[in-house]
Amino acid sequence: MYKDRIRQPGLERKIMSAQEAARLFKNGMTVGMSGFTKAGDCKALPDALAERARSEELKLTLITGASLGNDSDGVMADAGLLARRMPFQADASLRKKINAGEVMFIDQHLSETVEQLRGHNLRPIDIAVIEAVAITEDGGVVPSTSVGNSASFIEQAKQVIIELNLGMPLSLEGLHDIYVPQLRPGREPIPVLAVDQRIGTPAILLDAERLAGIVITNSADSPSTILPSDADTQAISRHVISFLADEVQAGRLTPALLPLQAGIGTIANSVLHGLLESPFEGMTMYSEVLQDSAFELLDSGQLAFASASSITLSEKMHQHFLDNIERYRSRLVLRPQEISNHPEVVRRLGLIAINTALEFDIFGNVNSTHVGGTHMMNGIGGSGDFARNAHLSIFVTKSVAKNGEISSIVPMVAHVDHTEHDVDVVATEWGLADLRGLAPRERAALIIERCVHPDYRDELNSYYTRACKRGGHTPHLLEEALSWHVRYQHNRSMLP
Amino acid sequence: MYKDRIRQPGLERKIMSAQEAARLFKNGMTVGMSGFTKAGDCKALPDALAERARSEELKLTLITGASLGNDSDGVMADAGLLARRMPFQADASLRKKINAGEVMFIDQHLSETVEQLRGHNLRPIDIAVIEAVAITEDGGVVPSTSVGNSASFIEQAKQVIIELNLGMPLSLEGLHDIYVPQLRPGREPIPVLAVDQRIGTPAILLDAERLAGIVITNSADSPSTILPSDADTQAISRHVISFLADEVQAGRLTPALLPLQAGIGTIANSVLHGLLESPFEGMTMYSEVLQDSAFELLDSGQLAFASASSITLSEKMHQHFLDNIERYRSRLVLRPQEISNHPEVVRRLGLIAINTALEFDIFGNVNSTHVGGTHMMNGIGGSGDFARNAHLSIFVTKSVAKNGEISSIVPMVAHVDHTEHDVDVVATEWGLADLRGLAPRERAALIIERCVHPDYRDELNSYYTRACKRGGHTPHLLEEALSWHVRYQHNRSMLP
Repeated sequence: MYKDRIRQPGLERKIMSAQEAARLFKNGMTVGMSGFTKAGDCKALPDALAERARSEELKLTLITGASLGNDSDGVMADAGLLARRMPFQADASLRKKINAGEVMFIDQHLSETVEQLRGHNLRPIDIAVIEAVAITEDGGVVPSTSVGNSASFIEQAKQVIIELNLGMPLSLEGLHDIYVPQLRPGREPIPVLAVDQRIGTPAILLDAERLAGIVITNSADSPSTILPSDADTQAISRHVISFLADEVQAGRLTPALLPLQAGIGTIANSVLHGLLESPFEGMTMYSEVLQDSAFELLDSGQLAFASASSITLSEKMHQHFLDNIERYRSRLVLRPQEISNHPEVVRRLGLIAINTALEFDIFGNVNSTHVGGTHMMNGIGGSGDFARNAHLSIFVTKSVAKNGEISSIVPMVAHVDHTEHDVDVVATEWGLADLRGLAPRERAALIIERCVHPDYRDELNSYYTRACKRGGHTPHLLEEALSWHVRYQHNRSMLP
Repeated sequence: MYKDRIRQPGLERKIMSAQEAARLFKNGMTVGMSGFTKAGDCKALPDALAERARSEELKLTLITGASLGNDSDGVMADAGLLARRMPFQADASLRKKINAGEVMFIDQHLSETVEQLRGHNLRPIDIAVIEAVAITEDGGVVPSTSVGNSASFIEQAKQVIIELNLGMPLSLEGLHDIYVPQLRPGREPIPVLAVDQRIGTPAILLDAERLAGIVITNSADSPSTILPSDADTQAISRHVISFLADEVQAGRLTPALLPLQAGIGTIANSVLHGLLESPFEGMTMYSEVLQDSAFELLDSGQLAFASASSITLSEKMHQHFLDNIERYRSRLVLRPQEISNHPEVVRRLGLIAINTALEFDIFGNVNSTHVGGTHMMNGIGGSGDFARNAHLSIFVTKSVAKNGEISSIVPMVAHVDHTEHDVDVVATEWGLADLRGLAPRERAALIIERCVHPDYRDELNSYYTRACKRGGHTPHLLEEALSWHVRYQHNRSMLP
């Protein structure tokens, strides 16, 4: 049974049910699970563990790559299983518990979690649960649609449970490139010198003694839920592409640009989608997640190669990907998120990073995470890994939200994830502000002129003008700086 | 004349006065000058250029390594010479003009300025002015007490002026290690694998055609103005050292620790000074600036090796350094600030980074730069380069300023330079909060308990308790969040 999937002799005897596997967990343990932006997450253990937590005291610290699919985070949160959760999530039920202070959520730069584990700044992983498509002859674990933190979880965990997903095709084997940085001191450089370079092994080595169980599953990743482009996201895309075209025109970029990174979500996907109509050729991606747009660009031939840590697609594109996997094989690599997001590599390659802001302020500080400055949406994700070290750090957002009741550009962001130092360009559907080499006062004037919705422009201008009279390198009226957010709390509208 | 200092044949004819050299500059030019934390700055051209600017329209964009000494920034600012200034400064007169909006100041991570120049995100350098102790037989420029951005300025500038400082001893030759990252694509890893590794050349290569002039000078760097330790800085030092000792005890660090970085200033210097009484041995530094304390630790033998971009000492320690330079030679290297601060190297080596906060908030967000959220003090400097990528990122500050009228721990910082993601530990004279692996609500409880001055503890507790009732991952009362700063504006006191 499963001879093509469990190739190391003798491992079949480790097959167990999810319920049996769940009994290996003890209250208070730290658990590492595969899964990154809904791709390659465990399909069985989350439910089985939640089941146990409903009838007995079982609270875990759960660390993943990023967000899980299949409502797993919600199921586990609702069952009271999650005491602590890191480094990212995107689930409505879990979010509610985080914001109620019932689940302690540690929001992290996605490249840093396993570094913190390795350096003992976090408690060690007791059990790792990793989705795989196969275990090789020599005990290599072949991940499925994401690598995430799985390689380091397997390396560090005291025990490992493999979820062998028969619903994931074996043809995924060979897409992955597994590399884990050495311990300090004496660590070598991460040898990625080009987007398409493979530096590791196709599978994650696991000694059989630590393999505590194999659970057979057979179900799909949750499809992505990105929305189609609309007039606003198309306008944002046009502004960004026109800016990049100007950079090519000025000789600062070639028509291949530099490796692209795009954050997850509708707006970033739409910007990439817009590249289909662009004059750029021979582009590459060095990103954390590949969405539908990346495959559209691979299909069009404009994207020569894509490197990421996960593949998160709509149902239709997912099928298209599986049907054509052999065509993509030579133009695709999936890496650990520590490598896909590593500051060393991001800076060496010089990425063009396109990420989505929840809001930004007139000086270009960005809030990526906190609604109203207090309530966590998803998490900072990899945006900081990329924005800090990119050749160009671009943040995009629609100028208003909630039917215009919220302005995405405010006097002062109510929470800062990215400081002005890490933000080169901001764009909304109204226009783009190129902030490179500008002082805060210059940034403010340009952002107000180019990016703000007309309904809010006069008031923002008034704020800024009055603040300048009071002076300062970064002029503010502190007693008014957060008044737009306060007004929204009271009136459900930022409009005056 | 100057045969030992100008060794390339024929270069003596390029000697000119500072006034002659100043005439090479045109209104609107971008100028790169040597100088990092007052060390190795140009001594003659700042005055000569200021002189010109007093009688004619001459406005420049001035880029340096970091701050200049000899009141040069003030003299140039007062003369109206500086239209734009980056990436750091620490001068009272210039600060005033920056905060009045008269000089456009671009505050940058110190590792990034030359990367931005190289990538054409900033306008190119027209003229570089570099202090040197010698020009070698093959045209190598030997810097003096700092390297800063000088290597890239020389590489990129259309014309170069050398200030040959006869007051700087030739024995400085050989301390420097010059390495500049390649252009993209195709850039190689930065090959620093250990603190004491040399990867480059002892001098900066300059082709004679671009050498526009040599100006002879003979004056010293400004001495550092750090204050001696006091009871508070000693208490901070004890807390940090006790924390590190616990890390050694727990087996997470060895007695050699990991390479240390310490920001410039009195508190960081005092923390390092405290290491003289510590049990740690065989320590190393990988920092941007070496202050008196680094040489005390070299003298005591506890510090095995120190790597930095500049040496900024008190008058007494400076003389001691010069008198003993041969003893230090094998244990010291000066690198370009791009390399001393490079995210790639900082993360590879796994630094223990100790930087000073102007204020931090209950969640551990740090303001390093803006007094009252609006007025620039000096600049972010290298703190972001180090804090983001360090193994341990520690921020220190006294719990109060202005005789207790200002609390350094506030509900919400009025300006964010470092987000909670990049802050592992905070310490004041009252105690230390180890924030690793904690969610914002846990961070707040610990910071209030450990670090806050008793005069402010109750009110901060009240704020936090009331904020928690309103909910959120990062609980705040937005209408009160900046009220402590507003109160200070009105009453010159944050006290209730």
